[in-house]
Amino acid sequence: MPATPGKCVLVTGFEPFGGERVNPSWEIVRALPATLGGHRVEKLLVPTEFGRSVRRVARAIDELGPALVLCIGEAGGRSRMSVERVAINVNDARIADNAGKQPVDEAIRAAGPAAYLCTLPVKAMVAAISKAGVPAEISNCAGTFVCNQLIYGVLDHIAGKALAVRAGFMHVPYLEAQVLDKPHAAAMALASMVEGTKAAIMAAIKERMK
Amino acid sequence: MPATPGKCVLVTGFEPFGGERVNPSWEIVRALPATLGGHRVEKLLVPTEFGRSVRRVARAIDELGPALVLCIGEAGGRSRMSVERVAINVNDARIADNAGKQPVDEAIRAAGPAAYLCTLPVKAMVAAISKAGVPAEISNCAGTFVCNQLIYGVLDHIAGKALAVRAGFMHVPYLEAQVLDKPHAAAMALASMVEGTKAAIMAAIKERMK
Amino acid sequence: MPATPGKCVLVTGFEPFGGERVNPSWEIVRALPATLGGHRVEKLLVPTEFGRSVRRVARAIDELGPALVLCIGEAGGRSRMSVERVAINVNDARIADNAGKQPVDEAIRAAGPAAYLCTLPVKAMVAAISKAGVPAEISNCAGTFVCNQLIYGVLDHIAGKALAVRAGFMHVPYLEAQVLDKPHAAAMALASMVEGTKAAIMAAIKERMK
Amino acid sequence: MPATPGKCVLVTGFEPFGGERVNPSWEIVRALPATLGGHRVEKLLVPTEFGRSVRRVARAIDELGPALVLCIGEAGGRSRMSVERVAINVNDARIADNAGKQPVDEAIRAAGPAAYLCTLPVKAMVAAISKAGVPAEISNCAGTFVCNQLIYGVLDHIAGKALAVRAGFMHVPYLEAQVLDKPHAAAMALASMVEGTKAAIMAAIKERMK
Repeated sequence: MPATPGKCVLVTGFEPFGGERVNPSWEIVRALPATLGGHRVEKLLVPTEFGRSVRRVARAIDELGPALVLCIGEAGGRSRMSVERVAINVNDARIADNAGKQPVDEAIRAAGPAAYLCTLPVKAMVAAISKAGVPAEISNCAGTFVCNQLIYGVLDHIAGKALAVRAGFMHVPYLEAQVLDKPHAAAMALASMVEGTKAAIMAAIKERMK
Repeated sequence: MPATPGKCVLVTGFEPFGGERVNPSWEIVRALPATLGGHRVEKLLVPTEFGRSVRRVARAIDELGPALVLCIGEAGGRSRMSVERVAINVNDARIADNAGKQPVDEAIRAAGPAAYLCTLPVKAMVAAISKAGVPAEISNCAGTFVCNQLIYGVLDHIAGKALAVRAGFMHVPYLEAQVLDKPHAAAMALASMVEGTKAAIMAAIKERMK
Repeated sequence: MPATPGKCVLVTGFEPFGGERVNPSWEIVRALPATLGGHRVEKLLVPTEFGRSVRRVARAIDELGPALVLCIGEAGGRSRMSVERVAINVNDARIADNAGKQPVDEAIRAAGPAAYLCTLPVKAMVAAISKAGVPAEISNCAGTFVCNQLIYGVLDHIAGKALAVRAGFMHVPYLEAQVLDKPHAAAMALASMVEGTKAAIMAAIKERMK
Repeated sequence: MPATPGKCVLVTGFEPFGGERVNPSWEIVRALPATLGGHRVEKLLVPTEFGRSVRRVARAIDELGPALVLCIGEAGGRSRMSVERVAINVNDARIADNAGKQPVDEAIRAAGPAAYLCTLPVKAMVAAISKAGVPAEISNCAGTFVCNQLIYGVLDHIAGKALAVRAGFMHVPYLEAQVLDKPHAAAMALASMVEGTKAAIMAAIKERMK
């Protein structure tokens, strides 16, 4: 199905961080096809930095007017694709981001709500990923680092402007190449994660079109 | 230090559920002293049921007027005491509660906020538990079962009535006796959990008195 | 490199067991090429049964005269390819095998040695699998079920006849399709396991030819 | 029951290693009573060093003539008391011992058997520990560091002299104090480990007296 003019989904991945040389989230995004379910796939590489990451994606939303936004991030240690349900109003970093910032116990926006629920259909996405043969789960915790801030910030931006955009977040395991020297860490093959992500996006598009 | 008349902390534990014959949360609460840091310790056993558990604790808050509320619950599989930071507006039960109810993807209160942040000093509590020699951590996810509903409901009750009560939640591992036949499950000795809980409550009282 | 006439490696995989509908070990073996490193690849499906599995492989060794034997088995729960170092003289089954046998605390051969060390180059194989980009580790424990009995039995057969055959064992994770409904179980994509196995066999052949 | 003159059990623990300031194995041994099941309890602190640890315990066996030897060691990361079934003829150290030695892929004794099975009643010990309310399991892998070498060496010493001594090994988790800053590591309270060890020794004595 060719993309309908003007219809797009925005899919974002992060730059490597925490000493890694690659970030599975961006490897996945790069490998996605140019269109999915009649929508153009707009791919955006996002810096792993508090503040800048949110501004980058917010600007892209304003410029592109996507129907859906799916941000993807690495969650080293998890063993399956995790569709996040919620983003909380907390920055609390265990390590510094790529710009050296390490906020501790701060609100993302002082007057913001305690949390946003993601507006993509998380259960339908998990079901679709599983149906594609890839291990998936719902997660109720996107952490308190840049990933959580990004999706909180994106949902806050959408709410503030009352945009008709649905947005969500997916955490993914390490790539196999990242764990060769990490004795107990789980990993997932890139091909599996790409298939799972395509299935998740298709499920979100299908739900959107109902 | 004897309890000041009228000053109390409300500490709650749950009834056993999920096929278990004991719930570590209530075993801990039972073993607490009658007073802590100049406050009477009011102990409440709560049914592991959606709805009823919230009403039970809300009523106790109204009757007792505690300075602090600490609800405790079992998180089988965790290996350390987990002070929860947030409660989300979601009921999504993987198993039925003790009354046979199993809500799936429902809001706790349709018009309620997406989440509440706990109002106890979570980092000070984790530091105090650790200082007492007991493994502890902050958790950003209280699940989507009765535990999460209870603390969401309690914070919603407090917010609705604008009470000057701080409230929080702590998840605890299985007792050792619960994992004798569970090959890979972590556990913690009751004595350690009681010491950790006392330290957590003392830290919350100290912060409250500042 | 075409196979030299008469030169072969014997690679075995097991039938599904424990309620599974597929066994990753046999899926891997099926997917191997017909020749590797100048050796014909002889593929053998082995029943997951105490006794019969050993007799089946012992007979194949006698008939084929392989240079190397690599037996592969499923180790559900492990997250990487595990090259086993040792097989112990113990049958101690937590579940019944596919013929309903469940030996408890029995010797495999009453007068046999307490253990055999595998005679394939385990470290070189782990290094080769890792170099192929697939997570791998040495394991010092092949369990006490059919897998351990098979490699113990094979090494005992080879020792008893003083054959010039090297033999070893590799445990592999679940396939992704096996863990869709197992919340916390690790898995690995078939393609990765096939690549890893090819690298392991090549490393063993290379070492053999020194 | 007072100790019968001449009857003793030798129980050993290790010095701290790997950057730790305490070793749970010696803390357990120190806390054992002076007699158990009519046997004097001889306590020995063993250096965490290849070679010296074995010589130290072998000499104690020769001097004391114990009925039973139970060596205990730390297995950081395990969550329950692990009664070991087997010791293998391999030194393969991931870190240096306390004397700076780090053997890689060496035999403990070149002409020694591939393994020894421990001669204490492992299943009865696990059952007794569990009955005492402490999580326990059989382990088929004592590793390839100093712990494994010690029990291999002890069993080899006993076999070489044909002594009527039964010997075994038990790995224990970290103490709680050791994991306060290790986010995901399991631990066990000292009191629980002492109770479990007493139960294990009693079970071994009882079996011995049959």
